[in-house]
Amino acid sequence: MANLIQPKVLKGFRDFLPETEISRKDIQQTLEETFKSFGMVPIDTPVLEYTDVLLGKGSGETDKQIYRFNDHGKRDVAMRFDLTVPFARFMAAHINELYLPFKRYHISKVWRGENTQRGRYREFTQCDFDIVGVDTPEADFEILSIMHASLKALGVPDIHIHISHRGIFNAFLDHLGISDDLAEILRIVDKLAKIGEDKVLEMLTELADGDKASRILEYISAEGSFDDILGKLENLSGGPTPGSERIRIVRQMMIDCGIEELFVLNPSITRGLDYYTGIVYETFLDALPAIGSVCSGGRYNNLASIYSKTEMPGVGSSIGLDRLMAALDELGTSSSKKSLTDVLIMNMDRSLKGHYFSLATKLREAGLNAEVFLDNKKFKNQFSFAERKAIPFAVICGEDEFKENRVTLKDLNARQNFEMLTIEEAIEKIKEISG
Amino acid sequence: MANLIQPKVLKGFRDFLPETEISRKDIQQTLEETFKSFGMVPIDTPVLEYTDVLLGKGSGETDKQIYRFNDHGKRDVAMRFDLTVPFARFMAAHINELYLPFKRYHISKVWRGENTQRGRYREFTQCDFDIVGVDTPEADFEILSIMHASLKALGVPDIHIHISHRGIFNAFLDHLGISDDLAEILRIVDKLAKIGEDKVLEMLTELADGDKASRILEYISAEGSFDDILGKLENLSGGPTPGSERIRIVRQMMIDCGIEELFVLNPSITRGLDYYTGIVYETFLDALPAIGSVCSGGRYNNLASIYSKTEMPGVGSSIGLDRLMAALDELGTSSSKKSLTDVLIMNMDRSLKGHYFSLATKLREAGLNAEVFLDNKKFKNQFSFAERKAIPFAVICGEDEFKENRVTLKDLNARQNFEMLTIEEAIEKIKEISG
Repeated sequence: MANLIQPKVLKGFRDFLPETEISRKDIQQTLEETFKSFGMVPIDTPVLEYTDVLLGKGSGETDKQIYRFNDHGKRDVAMRFDLTVPFARFMAAHINELYLPFKRYHISKVWRGENTQRGRYREFTQCDFDIVGVDTPEADFEILSIMHASLKALGVPDIHIHISHRGIFNAFLDHLGISDDLAEILRIVDKLAKIGEDKVLEMLTELADGDKASRILEYISAEGSFDDILGKLENLSGGPTPGSERIRIVRQMMIDCGIEELFVLNPSITRGLDYYTGIVYETFLDALPAIGSVCSGGRYNNLASIYSKTEMPGVGSSIGLDRLMAALDELGTSSSKKSLTDVLIMNMDRSLKGHYFSLATKLREAGLNAEVFLDNKKFKNQFSFAERKAIPFAVICGEDEFKENRVTLKDLNARQNFEMLTIEEAIEKIKEISG
Repeated sequence: MANLIQPKVLKGFRDFLPETEISRKDIQQTLEETFKSFGMVPIDTPVLEYTDVLLGKGSGETDKQIYRFNDHGKRDVAMRFDLTVPFARFMAAHINELYLPFKRYHISKVWRGENTQRGRYREFTQCDFDIVGVDTPEADFEILSIMHASLKALGVPDIHIHISHRGIFNAFLDHLGISDDLAEILRIVDKLAKIGEDKVLEMLTELADGDKASRILEYISAEGSFDDILGKLENLSGGPTPGSERIRIVRQMMIDCGIEELFVLNPSITRGLDYYTGIVYETFLDALPAIGSVCSGGRYNNLASIYSKTEMPGVGSSIGLDRLMAALDELGTSSSKKSLTDVLIMNMDRSLKGHYFSLATKLREAGLNAEVFLDNKKFKNQFSFAERKAIPFAVICGEDEFKENRVTLKDLNARQNFEMLTIEEAIEKIKEISG
């Protein structure tokens, strides 16, 4: 035999074994059901794209991380590093086949060759949902509602969605007369949670005079009730702005729908990059603040401006599936199923194997997941197989049962036998026990 | 404004618009439900792997088609070109964490830089299901049952699964004394449907003497009932073989389960490559023979032999999702939904928008997919939006309805109005009309 090849995977990449994959698929399905219940439609785009199409909006950091190469036709191509850029390209390409407002979701893998650390992978899954074509408080509110409904449907306990508005912040910097330094100020403010107020103040003082630096700190650390904070921000910005009015309208919709308790006005949320123009938000778990935001996004001015002259204002959000799963694991609220099989039909007498398969068909027709053990190993081995797959029931049919057209049902959890049942009685008993 | 970047996709790659993506997701979900009902579990593997890991079992043809490059760490990496090689690597890597027989499914994209032609893409989706760790007729039969159940669940009309056995063919060539030319003979025989009997005979005659060539043609074009053909093959091979016994046992299980009509013994099926060692099969639609096989596979001796010393006999099959969807489209049996929204709540009076969102929540709680129109455009625009998304119902709530805590329900298909209903009555009416 030739030398064996070591079956290793690349650093930052992962295999998903059934237990994890069942749970990932459950989560994805729950998210899809929620997205669909809000009228969102799915799309898909290629994993590989022309590099210049993908990097049009990329930052320098993204350029370095992208998986890029020349294909067989010497085309410069790259694997997508997020789902936003392909969506922008998609909207520009298909605007004449679509309608506005267009509400799409996209759950798929993306790739970034970044340094791997705890909870960071080079291949990871994003769940994006966006509304394109309207700049209204209704759309802003709907994305927030979907975030809330999604995390509720997943059973994520005790979340708070921290919202803010880039328009108010911009008006505030204008009022201070230092809006030219926006990008640099955003970069510093974004570090607040990491480096603390003193350090932020120190860095801001290098940029603006001490009084203005203090005012920025006052803005981003404003405290009180939602309405109190909003009032303070308006005062610091020299009065109400379109941004603060928008937030007030969105807030009223939260109250009308009785979900206002979940939302915190947090002016330190800026989402770093200068991409966003309106409302921005991040989502934190009360029990695990250190894990960071599990669902973030905001409003942007013009999604597809590098590809199309058609204006497409949008608002959207993205759930990081890997981080969310890590959080659910840590909180012990993740489901964990080894398989989805309800019944194992024991392969007891091999001359009856055709009968075993027809029993399995009957179980499936009754909505149960059933499998026949595919070898004639010892009972011990077959039970051990059932245990490895966490199968709750076994059906046994030996010569005696077969002659009477009966089976024996074993409840493997309760270690209880039900003898000489018809297959219909066995199905009824399984459903009764499973509740 | 800077020059626009053209929003184009690579040749052989595709965007999926909502209508197609909804249908693709429906098909995938139906397949997953079927796979799970047979006790199959899902796994996932990385899109990128070390090239030497992927190409261990690749043929020369695959080498040329693979998307291969050096990553940031100068590693020689490649995108997977099928789901079988990654599965073999997966089994070798995780054998100690798993159990046998292991039954997995994997639905995912793969990439091949091959020439694009009608129905061939460089990015396409495979649906693989395999049973590893047993070499039994039960396992062979189960894969056939899953193929049958999957295509039935998808509503694919009038299919026939053509089966054959490589072991019988090998015994036959042995009996003729020309088994050394196996690979070349397989290559020729595989062309029968394409080039016809005369041409195949001509090519075979270049390889073996005329009598033997005629016998090969006699073998691959044997006709009659399932049992007749099996008898002929046994005669041509010098008597019963383990392969023909295995087929006979599998045939009996088909009869026991009442699905024997769907299976044809077709000795011209060889599946080309010398990978397969036992039963092999392809699936054809009676109405569209030209489209080729929509689901193919077979038994292989040792899945992971290049990575592991542990013997892993297996049997499996793969559905080509893109080809299957093309077939369903051509037959007019594909579903085609523009969205999944049941109800559009018209944005009539903007001061009531909070109320509209709370109505939407009530509809969702009743299991209906509902959305509020996110702008205050003219009714005409809102109805046109409903039409573009093929939404069957609209809910209207103006000042009058709001005061009475009522709504007007519009059945947009029947163009019928139901006035002054409570939201609960509207929900009941929608469910009644939708059936």
